[in-house]
Amino acid sequence: MPPAKKSLSADLRSSCPIAGSLDLLGDRWSLLVVRDLFSGSTRYGEFAASPEGIPTNILADRLVRLEENGLISSEPYQKNPTRYAYALTAKGRTLKPLLAFLGQWGARNIPGTKIPAELSATLRDN
Amino acid sequence: MPPAKKSLSADLRSSCPIAGSLDLLGDRWSLLVVRDLFSGSTRYGEFAASPEGIPTNILADRLVRLEENGLISSEPYQKNPTRYAYALTAKGRTLKPLLAFLGQWGARNIPGTKIPAELSATLRDN
Repeated sequence: MPPAKKSLSADLRSSCPIAGSLDLLGDRWSLLVVRDLFSGSTRYGEFAASPEGIPTNILADRLVRLEENGLISSEPYQKNPTRYAYALTAKGRTLKPLLAFLGQWGARNIPGTKIPAELSATLRDN
Repeated sequence: MPPAKKSLSADLRSSCPIAGSLDLLGDRWSLLVVRDLFSGSTRYGEFAASPEGIPTNILADRLVRLEENGLISSEPYQKNPTRYAYALTAKGRTLKPLLAFLGQWGARNIPGTKIPAELSATLRDN
């Protein structure tokens, strides 16, 4: 589903790279899709089945944005109707330390959360 | 401005700590307020004057949420009308590596952004 390329920098709020990162990743859902990709999910239905229950319109929007910004790529795995499999790009995989931090920080500071052993191992590996 | 204490865990979308962290920090503005606190800002007007132009209703909301969740504290510095100065708590300061990552990642991946030398030094210090 290759969308028209759009430069993120056109929409920057400031020259601050923290603000720029948040323009791209600062929402409640984008990094959960990235998490699921690190966990091995590749298909729309798999992302939609995650326990947080991402609304399908938001999922579709986030997949487009992540791909527009070079963090994921897509490839058709089926025709009639065409279905896409998604994967992290090299740039997307550079987000691993961010997910690792959010997982560790959350587990330490938010009662009731616990990082699954498998995801923890995935985020530790290089 | 001490609000009623509310447990974040009551609103969790799942037991995943990444999702939990994003419930608290996953928006375009909260971490910019945290950034400004690391940069030495303490007052409402200073946060509002940052180049991203945070809308004042969002700023007021984020200050309440950050304080409710123990990441910042407030103290009156003036009466009639009462004005508050804000500071990071010890828990809030544990977000420093997150800001450092977002700054470095943004500077590397988002054209047109550059982390100011002063902020970079602040985020490197321990």
